[in-house]
Amino acid sequence: MTDSSASPAIELADRFAIHELLALYGHLIDEREWTRLAEIFTDDVVFDASDFGAEVVNGRDRLVEVWSRPDAGHPLAHHASNIVLLGSAGPDSIDVLSKGLGVGPNGRVASIVYRDVVRQTDSGWRIARRTATLRRPTT
Amino acid sequence: MTDSSASPAIELADRFAIHELLALYGHLIDEREWTRLAEIFTDDVVFDASDFGAEVVNGRDRLVEVWSRPDAGHPLAHHASNIVLLGSAGPDSIDVLSKGLGVGPNGRVASIVYRDVVRQTDSGWRIARRTATLRRPTT
Amino acid sequence: MTDSSASPAIELADRFAIHELLALYGHLIDEREWTRLAEIFTDDVVFDASDFGAEVVNGRDRLVEVWSRPDAGHPLAHHASNIVLLGSAGPDSIDVLSKGLGVGPNGRVASIVYRDVVRQTDSGWRIARRTATLRRPTT
Repeated sequence: MTDSSASPAIELADRFAIHELLALYGHLIDEREWTRLAEIFTDDVVFDASDFGAEVVNGRDRLVEVWSRPDAGHPLAHHASNIVLLGSAGPDSIDVLSKGLGVGPNGRVASIVYRDVVRQTDSGWRIARRTATLRRPTT
Repeated sequence: MTDSSASPAIELADRFAIHELLALYGHLIDEREWTRLAEIFTDDVVFDASDFGAEVVNGRDRLVEVWSRPDAGHPLAHHASNIVLLGSAGPDSIDVLSKGLGVGPNGRVASIVYRDVVRQTDSGWRIARRTATLRRPTT
Repeated sequence: MTDSSASPAIELADRFAIHELLALYGHLIDEREWTRLAEIFTDDVVFDASDFGAEVVNGRDRLVEVWSRPDAGHPLAHHASNIVLLGSAGPDSIDVLSKGLGVGPNGRVASIVYRDVVRQTDSGWRIARRTATLRRPTT
């Protein structure tokens, strides 16, 4: 993790766009708007939720398949927060750290850490890689 | 819902002000600062929480009346997130999508979707219309 | 509390940096990265969580000591939201109001209000004073 103050080179407009990208993610999943996932993911996105026992998904088309299954197990809602742009992850790419709350039907939450690589495309910033890790009590 | 990347015309300073407007909302309600609602709402605000069984409130004065009732049923706290500026909603107005968590006294949360119209006034950006919808399990 | 629209003089880059500062706070605590607290706190930080029955901590070194105790009682995760920059708190300092959710191991949350003074240092913006208050049901 790099000190965020070490990445002043990221333009403010890009910073804002990346924040809204991570915000939009929750709306699209929660509304099951699978036809709109191109607004948040690159076509070659890698989605790693293996920490939850899920397969590592390669590609947006496959992600739509997996997520639209009746037994996909989506929480009731995704709330994004704690977005920190860490710095360059290669050409046109930025490492981003954030948190999410998954809300269960009983009003209890799961706390998630997201480690993303976001990439600038002709259509704007998109998530190229997302790794989701569940916060668990340490004993 | 419009792709947020389709609204580059909104100035960054305005974007920031709108984010802070939605952030301030939770502080004012949770602290019961009814005399300060002019800092977040237009005087002709329409507040639609009919999804919760509440009346559709017309006007800020009426909103103060309704919210200051002993039986108003406010949650313990309002936490804002997932703010996405969707684009123009007419002259000096922007459609905004966001989420909120309402925290209950037992530490359980309700997940809310807010669809707002915010309007630029002489005093800054204000919420002119807010529609609150509760996320419910789909069966 | 000052109307946030009364502080247009704060540069957008500073606003963004302060938002990310408060976001980073949760990541560092939750990952127990005590050696990195200089990225978020001034060395003379005052941390007042007396509302939780904790001592008022003076200085970052003492804070590391207190927080790294086995019985420190950290929640599972800290989620930041509702960040509002209130305006100048003196030279190079800004008053900031925000909220946080502390997630418990059982998926229930505590809602916290943070009142901060953040200060611009040679290394960037840092929290110079933080007062944390628990939201409690009013009876």
